[in-house]
Amino acid sequence: MGEPVEVHWHEHAVSRADREATAGHRGCVVWFTGLSGSGKSTLANLVDHRLHAAGLRSFVLDGDNVRMGLNASPAMLEPHYGRDYATRFGLSFAAEDRTENIRRIGAVAGLFTQAGLITLTAFVSPFRADRDAVRAALESNDFVEVYVQAPLEVCEARDPKGLYKKARSGEIRDFTGIHQPYEEPVAPELTVDTATSTPDALAGEVLNYLVATGRIPATAC
Amino acid sequence: MGEPVEVHWHEHAVSRADREATAGHRGCVVWFTGLSGSGKSTLANLVDHRLHAAGLRSFVLDGDNVRMGLNASPAMLEPHYGRDYATRFGLSFAAEDRTENIRRIGAVAGLFTQAGLITLTAFVSPFRADRDAVRAALESNDFVEVYVQAPLEVCEARDPKGLYKKARSGEIRDFTGIHQPYEEPVAPELTVDTATSTPDALAGEVLNYLVATGRIPATAC
Repeated sequence: MGEPVEVHWHEHAVSRADREATAGHRGCVVWFTGLSGSGKSTLANLVDHRLHAAGLRSFVLDGDNVRMGLNASPAMLEPHYGRDYATRFGLSFAAEDRTENIRRIGAVAGLFTQAGLITLTAFVSPFRADRDAVRAALESNDFVEVYVQAPLEVCEARDPKGLYKKARSGEIRDFTGIHQPYEEPVAPELTVDTATSTPDALAGEVLNYLVATGRIPATAC
Repeated sequence: MGEPVEVHWHEHAVSRADREATAGHRGCVVWFTGLSGSGKSTLANLVDHRLHAAGLRSFVLDGDNVRMGLNASPAMLEPHYGRDYATRFGLSFAAEDRTENIRRIGAVAGLFTQAGLITLTAFVSPFRADRDAVRAALESNDFVEVYVQAPLEVCEARDPKGLYKKARSGEIRDFTGIHQPYEEPVAPELTVDTATSTPDALAGEVLNYLVATGRIPATAC
């Protein structure tokens, strides 16, 4: 063994501002909230697609990629970690678990923001307090709340995943809009109505908002 | 209200391959593991700095940014969410909680990888099973385990955060290397020795490995 080498700590850390300068835009969280079937995922993916096409750094967090890993259910964790562990850390759809689901997603979106990305999240996130907690945990101005509005009857008629049907038949319990309330945002940064406008037009509205607030360059639209 | 608009789901999703093509490199997780004081954070930040300077997309996950939010302690959660919630979801340093700490970090690193980033993680992660579980949860070849090796006496002499001193005095319990074992990787992708080489030289080794395995272009070194 040679001479011990002195180790200096964190002197080379790349700052968020450094990453944003390289990316050419700000990081932020665009939080789509609304009923199941309102069009959150469609809109988030469309905005992501446009940002990516413009060379910007973005990512979508949604049930598909979060429920498989970070916020796995007790049933998913149990084979690997045992029942006690799965019961404690796995997330069901009970109120407290939904709160923790949103808390973890908000924290991850915050990390992506520090990495300089525009994170688009697509979760029903029905409780106002949970969304406000995410906003409060982020740096000031990093949270862009987009209320994806559509009447319940329109969402239920779309029913893209067949969830309303299962909720009506009793196969699913605690379903937002049927058994549990959806708490509308009080002062969202944006409200979009997917019952009367096309996803393309609404994606344009979101992008325009990001340009108007100085988060992305006008050339991205 | 106008005519209801049909919503198409996920048709515009940007794939990982799309993001990697734009970034000009592959996403992956470079997982630095080793004793406290071995130099994991220094090395992770140095590699991050070099990748960023080369225009590549990268990020560091470490205790500083993960323990503040995603993996907050019970004491941090309690004022906002109450005691029962904090006790259930907050993470202590008990064995099961350390496992969950690593599981969540691995899941987040997986999301960053899907976003096309090179994620550098700097956690002691003393348990082999926990690291192997992260590897297993990622896509094949996405996990680059780097064993940051340094003798305990060297790490303790450095003691950059004063943790060994507190562990020896009994102020900290369950400290890896003093009270709990560190389980060395069996077949890490890389082993680096910070007792005999400089951080700069070792960062170069990591970058060379990423080039040699086709993850980043040779121009990044």
